[in-house]
Amino acid sequence: MHKVTVCRKAHFNAAHRLYNPEWSDDQNSEVFGKCSNPHYHGHNYDLIVKVSGYPDPQTGYVVDMKKLKDIIHEEVTSRFDHKNLNLDTEEFRRVNPTAENIAVVIWNLIRDQIDQELDLKVILFETERNFVEYPA
Amino acid sequence: MHKVTVCRKAHFNAAHRLYNPEWSDDQNSEVFGKCSNPHYHGHNYDLIVKVSGYPDPQTGYVVDMKKLKDIIHEEVTSRFDHKNLNLDTEEFRRVNPTAENIAVVIWNLIRDQIDQELDLKVILFETERNFVEYPA
Amino acid sequence: MHKVTVCRKAHFNAAHRLYNPEWSDDQNSEVFGKCSNPHYHGHNYDLIVKVSGYPDPQTGYVVDMKKLKDIIHEEVTSRFDHKNLNLDTEEFRRVNPTAENIAVVIWNLIRDQIDQELDLKVILFETERNFVEYPA
Amino acid sequence: MHKVTVCRKAHFNAAHRLYNPEWSDDQNSEVFGKCSNPHYHGHNYDLIVKVSGYPDPQTGYVVDMKKLKDIIHEEVTSRFDHKNLNLDTEEFRRVNPTAENIAVVIWNLIRDQIDQELDLKVILFETERNFVEYPA
Amino acid sequence: MHKVTVCRKAHFNAAHRLYNPEWSDDQNSEVFGKCSNPHYHGHNYDLIVKVSGYPDPQTGYVVDMKKLKDIIHEEVTSRFDHKNLNLDTEEFRRVNPTAENIAVVIWNLIRDQIDQELDLKVILFETERNFVEYPA
Amino acid sequence: MHKVTVCRKAHFNAAHRLYNPEWSDDQNSEVFGKCSNPHYHGHNYDLIVKVSGYPDPQTGYVVDMKKLKDIIHEEVTSRFDHKNLNLDTEEFRRVNPTAENIAVVIWNLIRDQIDQELDLKVILFETERNFVEYPA
Repeated sequence: MHKVTVCRKAHFNAAHRLYNPEWSDDQNSEVFGKCSNPHYHGHNYDLIVKVSGYPDPQTGYVVDMKKLKDIIHEEVTSRFDHKNLNLDTEEFRRVNPTAENIAVVIWNLIRDQIDQELDLKVILFETERNFVEYPA
Repeated sequence: MHKVTVCRKAHFNAAHRLYNPEWSDDQNSEVFGKCSNPHYHGHNYDLIVKVSGYPDPQTGYVVDMKKLKDIIHEEVTSRFDHKNLNLDTEEFRRVNPTAENIAVVIWNLIRDQIDQELDLKVILFETERNFVEYPA
Repeated sequence: MHKVTVCRKAHFNAAHRLYNPEWSDDQNSEVFGKCSNPHYHGHNYDLIVKVSGYPDPQTGYVVDMKKLKDIIHEEVTSRFDHKNLNLDTEEFRRVNPTAENIAVVIWNLIRDQIDQELDLKVILFETERNFVEYPA
Repeated sequence: MHKVTVCRKAHFNAAHRLYNPEWSDDQNSEVFGKCSNPHYHGHNYDLIVKVSGYPDPQTGYVVDMKKLKDIIHEEVTSRFDHKNLNLDTEEFRRVNPTAENIAVVIWNLIRDQIDQELDLKVILFETERNFVEYPA
Repeated sequence: MHKVTVCRKAHFNAAHRLYNPEWSDDQNSEVFGKCSNPHYHGHNYDLIVKVSGYPDPQTGYVVDMKKLKDIIHEEVTSRFDHKNLNLDTEEFRRVNPTAENIAVVIWNLIRDQIDQELDLKVILFETERNFVEYPA
Repeated sequence: MHKVTVCRKAHFNAAHRLYNPEWSDDQNSEVFGKCSNPHYHGHNYDLIVKVSGYPDPQTGYVVDMKKLKDIIHEEVTSRFDHKNLNLDTEEFRRVNPTAENIAVVIWNLIRDQIDQELDLKVILFETERNFVEYPA
C-alpha cells in the first residue's frame, strides 16, 4: 500500500501589484510591466491543496475533506478574498505578491494546521494560463 | 437559411470596487459588502462576443474572426487589462463597475465597430460562478 | 437600453433512478436502460440560474448576486444536495427525476422567490455532456 | 408549461483548410491567412446539439438522450471524425469548411433525423475561443 | 531519454454512501455527515489513468491509447457506471467507498492489465473540487 | 525553502497522421487505425510548460512568465501552429508525430532556451481525454 494524495480546490478574488520597494518606479515598471500598475489589477485565484498520507482504516480518509475545507477557509480564503494583497494583508506588506510568493505564503499558513506526518503541496492559479506549484 | 452566430472569447484582468458616490460609506458597505473594499479587489474577466448575421457566400464568414479578435483587443482588452476600472478608465469614473454595467459598456464600445446589419451580444464572466449577458 | 441577464452557478450531488411506477420493471428497463438501476446511481448536478431585467440605477444590479445565491441555496441546494431524489424529496415522489423534470421543478421553486418583473431561466447539467434548459 | 431544451455534447477531430476555388492562391492566402495552409491544419471540434419540445408525460423525456447520442454518432461523428473535411467528405468538396458552414451542414444532417415538431440548434466549437451557433 | 507518461481520461456515474458497518448509525452520521445518507447520493466520477515508460521506437507509443481505453472500459467503467457502489459491486461490499479507497481499488484492477515494466497512477475526481491521486 | 514550479499554458492547432514509413500501408492501418488516415486529421493541442527553481529574491520570480511566454511562442507555437506536422516541419519528417514524440520534441526545443539550473517538464494535450507528460 502506497500513500494517497487528497486534493481540495478553493478560490478567492484579490487585487495586487508587483512591486519591489527597493527599486525606482522605472525599474519596477521595466521588470514587472503592466503587472506593476500603481492602481493595482486583480485576479480570480484558484487554489488546489494536496495532502498525502495513508488512509485511516476506520474511515478510509487520509484527511477529512470537510476539515481540510475549513482549514483552507480559515487560513486562506477568509484572509485574502476580496482583499488588496499589498495593502490589506500582513503577509504581503514586505513580500512581493508574485504567484510564486503567494503559493509559498499559503503553504506556510496551512502547514501548521495539518498533521506533520502528512505531506503538503499547493497549486495556485493566477489565471488559467499562469500557475505555480509549491514545493516543485 | 437562418442567421449564424459567431462567438469569440477573450479575457482581461482588472481591479475594481463597487461604490455609489452618492451614498455614505456605511451604505456602500451595507449594500455591496466585501465587494466595496476601499482598497479594491480583482478578477480574471472572461468575455464572449457574439455576432449574428448571414455568412458571406464568398468567404463562408459571418465576420472574419481575426478582425473580430482585433476589435476586441483594441476596444476592450487594451483598455481594461491590468487596469483599475474605477481609477484608470474613463468609462467607470462615474459608472459603478458591476458586471452588468461592464457588459453594457463593452457592448457599446464594440457596437460601433461592427456592421450595423449584424446583431451583437456580449457575455461577461466575473468569476466562473457569476456572469452576465447583454442584451438579455 | 435593453434588459441584462445575470447568471449564477451552483451545484449539488444526488442519487436518482428513472422510473415510471405505472410500468412493469421490464418496461422501465427497456425505456430507461441502466438509468433505471433499482439501486440508483448518481450525479454531480451543475445548475445555472439566469435572471433578466433592467439594472437598478442606484446599485447597477439587476439582482443582488448574494441574494440570488442565498435563494438558490435555500430552495435548491439545501433541498437536494446529498439526497436520493426519488426517496428523500417530496418533489420527485411522483415525478420521474429526468433532467427535464428536475429543471422544471427547480424553476418553479425559484420562480416564487424572484420579483415577477424579472425573467427566469435555468440550465441543469446532469453530466458535462447532458444538460437541459428551461424554458427552452 | 413551456418547452424544455435538451442538449447533448459530442466531439470529433478533423483536418481542414479554408479555400475558395474561384480565387487565386494569393487571394486565398490574403483572406484566410494561415487557415489556408495548403497542407491543412486541424481541430478538436466540440459539438452541442440542442433539441427543444415538451417532455413526454410517460417518460419525462423531450427526446431520449441515448437516441440523440446515436443520431449524432451516425450523422456527424462517424462521418467527420479523423477525416480531412476538404478531401474525405462529400459535404465539403464544394463548401468551404468554415465553422459557420460546418455548423449549417451538421444542422441539416441532423434535422432530418429529429421529429419535425422539435426545434433544433447546434453549437460548434472550433477552438475554446472560436465557436458558432446555428440558427443564431 | 527519460520516461514519458501517457494519460487517458474516462468517467462514470455512480451512487454511494460512506459507512463503517462496525459503527453505530450515530457514529457514522457524526463522522461522515450528509455523505452517510442511508438512501445514498451520487457523483459523476472523472478518472485519469497515467502510464509511464519508454516509447516503442517502432510506434512512438508508450502504450496504445486505444488499448488503454479498452482496459479502462472493461475494468472500471463497465463495472461501476450507473451502479450503486455499496450494493451493486463486489469491490465495495466491505470497503468504504471514499474517494481514497475507490482510487486504490481502481489502481489494483488496472495494474494487472498493464505491462509490469510500466508505472501506473490514477487520479479520481469525486467532484471538481475533491479529488485524489494514487500512489501519492 | 523548496523549489517552486512555474507553469505556463499555450496552444496550437495542427494536422498530422501517425505513420511508420518502414511499414506497409496495411500495417500502418492495422496499428494506428483511423489516426493513420492518409489525408490527415487534426487537433487543438494544449501545452503546459513547467519550470522549477528557486525564486529570485529581488523579483519573486522563478522565471519571468512574459519571457517564458515568448520562448514558447518562438520555439513551439510559431513553428507548429496551423501546420501539417508531417509535411510542414523539419522535426517530424522522420519522427512519427505521436503525442509522446511531440512532447519530447517540444521539451528539447525549449530546454536550450531555459537556464540549465532550472528543471523543465512539458504536458501536451492531444485532446481533453488524451495527454502526455515528459519527463514522466
